[in-house]
Amino acid sequence: MFEFRWKYRVAFSETDMAGIVHFSNYFRYMEMAEHAFLRSLGLTVHANGDDGAASWPRVHAECTYTAPLTFEDELEVHLLVREKARKTITYDFRLLKDSETLVATGSLTVICVSIDPATKKMTAMPIPRLVDELIEPAPAELLAAADLPS
Amino acid sequence: MFEFRWKYRVAFSETDMAGIVHFSNYFRYMEMAEHAFLRSLGLTVHANGDDGAASWPRVHAECTYTAPLTFEDELEVHLLVREKARKTITYDFRLLKDSETLVATGSLTVICVSIDPATKKMTAMPIPRLVDELIEPAPAELLAAADLPS
Amino acid sequence: MFEFRWKYRVAFSETDMAGIVHFSNYFRYMEMAEHAFLRSLGLTVHANGDDGAASWPRVHAECTYTAPLTFEDELEVHLLVREKARKTITYDFRLLKDSETLVATGSLTVICVSIDPATKKMTAMPIPRLVDELIEPAPAELLAAADLPS
Amino acid sequence: MFEFRWKYRVAFSETDMAGIVHFSNYFRYMEMAEHAFLRSLGLTVHANGDDGAASWPRVHAECTYTAPLTFEDELEVHLLVREKARKTITYDFRLLKDSETLVATGSLTVICVSIDPATKKMTAMPIPRLVDELIEPAPAELLAAADLPS
Repeated sequence: MFEFRWKYRVAFSETDMAGIVHFSNYFRYMEMAEHAFLRSLGLTVHANGDDGAASWPRVHAECTYTAPLTFEDELEVHLLVREKARKTITYDFRLLKDSETLVATGSLTVICVSIDPATKKMTAMPIPRLVDELIEPAPAELLAAADLPS
Repeated sequence: MFEFRWKYRVAFSETDMAGIVHFSNYFRYMEMAEHAFLRSLGLTVHANGDDGAASWPRVHAECTYTAPLTFEDELEVHLLVREKARKTITYDFRLLKDSETLVATGSLTVICVSIDPATKKMTAMPIPRLVDELIEPAPAELLAAADLPS
Repeated sequence: MFEFRWKYRVAFSETDMAGIVHFSNYFRYMEMAEHAFLRSLGLTVHANGDDGAASWPRVHAECTYTAPLTFEDELEVHLLVREKARKTITYDFRLLKDSETLVATGSLTVICVSIDPATKKMTAMPIPRLVDELIEPAPAELLAAADLPS
Repeated sequence: MFEFRWKYRVAFSETDMAGIVHFSNYFRYMEMAEHAFLRSLGLTVHANGDDGAASWPRVHAECTYTAPLTFEDELEVHLLVREKARKTITYDFRLLKDSETLVATGSLTVICVSIDPATKKMTAMPIPRLVDELIEPAPAELLAAADLPS
């Protein structure tokens, strides 16, 4: 799989005194869509396995804001898998209001790590086989189309 | 010790579209003052010990709002230890703006738990001796005075 | 109307290092259920009218925590209108995990205010007729039942 | 001015179940440093003037994460003004733990807007003269040095 759509209603606590959604919340929205994508595949972003926990911390996050988002707006987040490397995955996101107005584009690059149960130290590791089999990069033409504003 | 004062500058992301601090953030402010109080005693709210972690989840939290708090306000949080039981501590809080206007009063009741390293299950336990020796309830007259609005 | 049920999936960003949902988020959940209740009646918590804005700031909020809530839990919030006074409404909440385990009970008391468009000053005012006609306190027996843990 | 340093103690509510600061909070930290920089110049990010409000919404935000940040860490945020255009400013940030370990680098591009008091519509406008006089891009050699990991 390389594509997912997730819907959300903007909450009051996510707005700020300028009357619009605080920019940091767009990163929470992208992550919520990523986790819903993983759930749809029977996966989770943070799992406890035999040798401690496996998790997916972020190594890069970015967002470009094109239109304001306000309280009670119906947000739709489109996720595309841009790239899969040995230890990392990059997701691209398009955030739409009322299924038509592009409010933001963004991306998250996440790295697979194991967490030592005693020291809590994180060590990068290759993407587990199950994840590797289920997640694949989107076709180039789909990614190219996503680069253009709606 | 039974008393602590902690200062903070209200952040933009803590406001909402009504132009004031979102009410849920007052609970974060109270907790930040509680943790600064513990730090001042050489303690911490979440520690990894020999038999897994010890932590202080909340069993009750409340807040009464008396005046709005806005962006860049200088907030002062006054903490008083109201009660210490075998496994729980109740803290009272008064939140002041510019050291004089009472904006809220509140309380947090926290319980001492051990967290099983494998199952993550929490079990209530008596307050550790070190904490018990350092933290004591405030004198009755101080608590009575705190009950009155400024 | 005096009753509403609202569902939500716990987000990763709402957990803390103790591995459970941070207690301040329960207040966001209660508010999200309140706003969904208002929306179901065609109302909103923050409206711009002819004479400036009308809003519903909180005067009191409280929560009692009975079981932990963790990442990806399916949360169900039951709202009951406990009391309607001339200018205020008190909502009671029960938070359930997987539709059966009670994780918290809480309440929010909100006050109707007008906000001066120029000075942003808030002034308490009687509940507007439309809201008064649509929202009513729950029957006593329903409120009594809600007082008991599940 | 083109440079600012701001300190902060990581709060418990900013951590997540992986035991580290949730990545979205780094954007709040960058913004808190930006606002402290503006305050140090006698400016503010959101002002009510004669013709409605002036504000600085974000048009782009990004962050690269290099080391984890945990509860009670002493964070230091270094701000540098990278670019000043007619209507926008780009700030670069370096986030350090204990004044020495680089935990993240990032940037925010903000745009000056006026907000119509009636419709709340935002319109981009040239940076006000006062701001233009006080804020200037950092020298090229300082920006080049900041590009390198510590």
